Amino acid sequence: MLGTYLENVRGASPLVHCITNYVTVNDCANMLLACGASPIMADDLAEMEEISSICSGLVINIGTLNSRTITSMKAAGKAACRLGHPVILDPVGAGASQLRTQTASSIMQEVCPSVIRGNISEIKSLFQGRGTTKGVDADSADRVTEEGLQDAVALVNGWAQDAGCIIAVTGAIDLICDGRTAYCVRNGHPFMSRVTGTGCQLSALMAAFVSANGRQTLEAVVAAACTMGLAGETARRRLAPQEGNASYRNHIIDAVCSLSAADLDEGARYEVC
Amino acid sequence: MLGTYLENVRGASPLVHCITNYVTVNDCANMLLACGASPIMADDLAEMEEISSICSGLVINIGTLNSRTITSMKAAGKAACRLGHPVILDPVGAGASQLRTQTASSIMQEVCPSVIRGNISEIKSLFQGRGTTKGVDADSADRVTEEGLQDAVALVNGWAQDAGCIIAVTGAIDLICDGRTAYCVRNGHPFMSRVTGTGCQLSALMAAFVSANGRQTLEAVVAAACTMGLAGETARRRLAPQEGNASYRNHIIDAVCSLSAADLDEGARYEVC
Amino acid sequence: MLGTYLENVRGASPLVHCITNYVTVNDCANMLLACGASPIMADDLAEMEEISSICSGLVINIGTLNSRTITSMKAAGKAACRLGHPVILDPVGAGASQLRTQTASSIMQEVCPSVIRGNISEIKSLFQGRGTTKGVDADSADRVTEEGLQDAVALVNGWAQDAGCIIAVTGAIDLICDGRTAYCVRNGHPFMSRVTGTGCQLSALMAAFVSANGRQTLEAVVAAACTMGLAGETARRRLAPQEGNASYRNHIIDAVCSLSAADLDEGARYEVC
Repeated sequence: MLGTYLENVRGASPLVHCITNYVTVNDCANMLLACGASPIMADDLAEMEEISSICSGLVINIGTLNSRTITSMKAAGKAACRLGHPVILDPVGAGASQLRTQTASSIMQEVCPSVIRGNISEIKSLFQGRGTTKGVDADSADRVTEEGLQDAVALVNGWAQDAGCIIAVTGAIDLICDGRTAYCVRNGHPFMSRVTGTGCQLSALMAAFVSANGRQTLEAVVAAACTMGLAGETARRRLAPQEGNASYRNHIIDAVCSLSAADLDEGARYEVC
Repeated sequence: MLGTYLENVRGASPLVHCITNYVTVNDCANMLLACGASPIMADDLAEMEEISSICSGLVINIGTLNSRTITSMKAAGKAACRLGHPVILDPVGAGASQLRTQTASSIMQEVCPSVIRGNISEIKSLFQGRGTTKGVDADSADRVTEEGLQDAVALVNGWAQDAGCIIAVTGAIDLICDGRTAYCVRNGHPFMSRVTGTGCQLSALMAAFVSANGRQTLEAVVAAACTMGLAGETARRRLAPQEGNASYRNHIIDAVCSLSAADLDEGARYEVC
Repeated sequence: MLGTYLENVRGASPLVHCITNYVTVNDCANMLLACGASPIMADDLAEMEEISSICSGLVINIGTLNSRTITSMKAAGKAACRLGHPVILDPVGAGASQLRTQTASSIMQEVCPSVIRGNISEIKSLFQGRGTTKGVDADSADRVTEEGLQDAVALVNGWAQDAGCIIAVTGAIDLICDGRTAYCVRNGHPFMSRVTGTGCQLSALMAAFVSANGRQTLEAVVAAACTMGLAGETARRRLAPQEGNASYRNHIIDAVCSLSAADLDEGARYEVC
């Protein structure tokens, strides 16, 4: 049951190194604290080795990449790999510019991430060249639907085999594949797309869950996705009539903060597909 | 009626490119999502052309400018101009340093923004050299008052003629002039000045409204100003006795999220002046 | 009584220059507005002199330092010193990397800060070389406890004498020493450690309080620490059962916004120790 994965995060309280965008960085830090982990944000090349050595996981999020931080991302990624720490790559906006697509691709190749998490358009652009990303949101033509689910599973599993890592395509239905096994996660709420950074926060959660759960990386990623989606559902129920996306943002983080292992066991909606 | 302008934002869901400060960037992103638009933040020179090509409007906000991002601001501005996309310039802190005044001036000259939005001290420093900006707030001696309104209108209209674009001077009374027509907007609440970034958020809203409303730029800017001010009023009414500026920040964004076209039609207080 | 120090902040409304990390910068800005001060964030070297000249205090927070901003921190620090403005140094993560420890040390030596505020591990690393900082949190072995209080006071007073400035070691018990007098502050709530940036916000508050309170620097620092801790207590009482760390963040800032001088007089728990 997935609750154990959350308990392990709270027990281990992993320190997660984030090189992430300046748009949603505060929410990522509070989300890590909400789940029981600790964040450290550091992006100067000179400290990548040392910061990596005191952390147990790394998130590389290219949301506001620049040439200076790209260098740091790669250095931190390589240091984390050498130390055997999980690296989660969030290729925000891949497909929207060559800089993003190529940076994400080269990190994928040079750093050997444990998990790549993005929307379907971002992930597609990594494996099929220039995509049709609408900025940082998925193109509607790409979306994973119930009807197209088996085709999507085959596609994503193929990408996971190519990349040699877990691919997490998140959206209305999340697909999480390691090249052999594929999970579907059906938690979440459409209103989450009206809050900036729910994807970034999920990538941070994945880093915490994977860091704290030894070799059970695939299940840890599924647990993180269920945690985020379930928080989105809980937060939606708590939303008062006059509240909007700013309050919803707070409710989502709050919901992770107060989520128990039993809540997660009960509310998680996932299956092998 | 202004409600139509809001409906057009929700219908078109314009993707707005923001090169903005790292202080209020998250609020700008959530404000864009609240009004129905989508944000993308990107500031590396290498991707300015491509990001511009997938967006329909640009905000340049110099709140935490540096030499690297200034170059990107100009490149993105020129790309947006070539593509016929509206550019909103927010000269945060112009007058507080020569770097800010000169950067804003050179962007104004090189990029041909559609709209320049700032407080009276910031705008004044662009047109009359070094001003008396108190950091990022307006100097009280400069403030637009009911008594001095006609003088202020003449002044701002003159600046709009000089610059060849719309000038939006926001404060207790907002003046929005294109050199021929001037609107006064009397929405808003004084407590908004206790929340960091309400000006930045308004500039982002203006980009969304102008992007989605074809050639009716002046009215779109007025609609954005009324939307922000009305949200400030609504949020103030919803503020519980123990709540302060942090909750108010959330209520303002929430209020835009739940604002209907009819609400805007009913609550907007503006007139040609 | 400490309430006077808060009243002086509200009376003077000092403009505080912050060179701070991009993780918690928005909360620092809203916290400054909450207490009655005004923030300006600026980090380009070219404007450090001018921005310093219009401000009355400076916070240097190294939470996401890089080589460019380190240069600006030192330039701003020196400008502030020349102008007789107080400088508050927040050595976030000192001990976690040599870059952080050495940067904080060199700022301490070159800039002559009025106050250095950090957790015990960060401060220790400045005075005893490489520490055992757990990222940005204190190592549990270092923590100031009631039993070890007198030893801690002696240690921190010695550091204050060495540095020639006030040292504020904050945690469950805050110690604030100028080398002769030591204050203990016992306000606060453990849940504050689950919100990112409460330390950063406290450093910003200290800058506001010191800027507005003339030569009574030690007492102004104590007043800022009591304000923050008391806000943490008030916010904890206001936290609804389903709320978590995101709501708590807002409640803390709100509590400072609505804190009266009488509230502070009544709620402050501090003593010479």
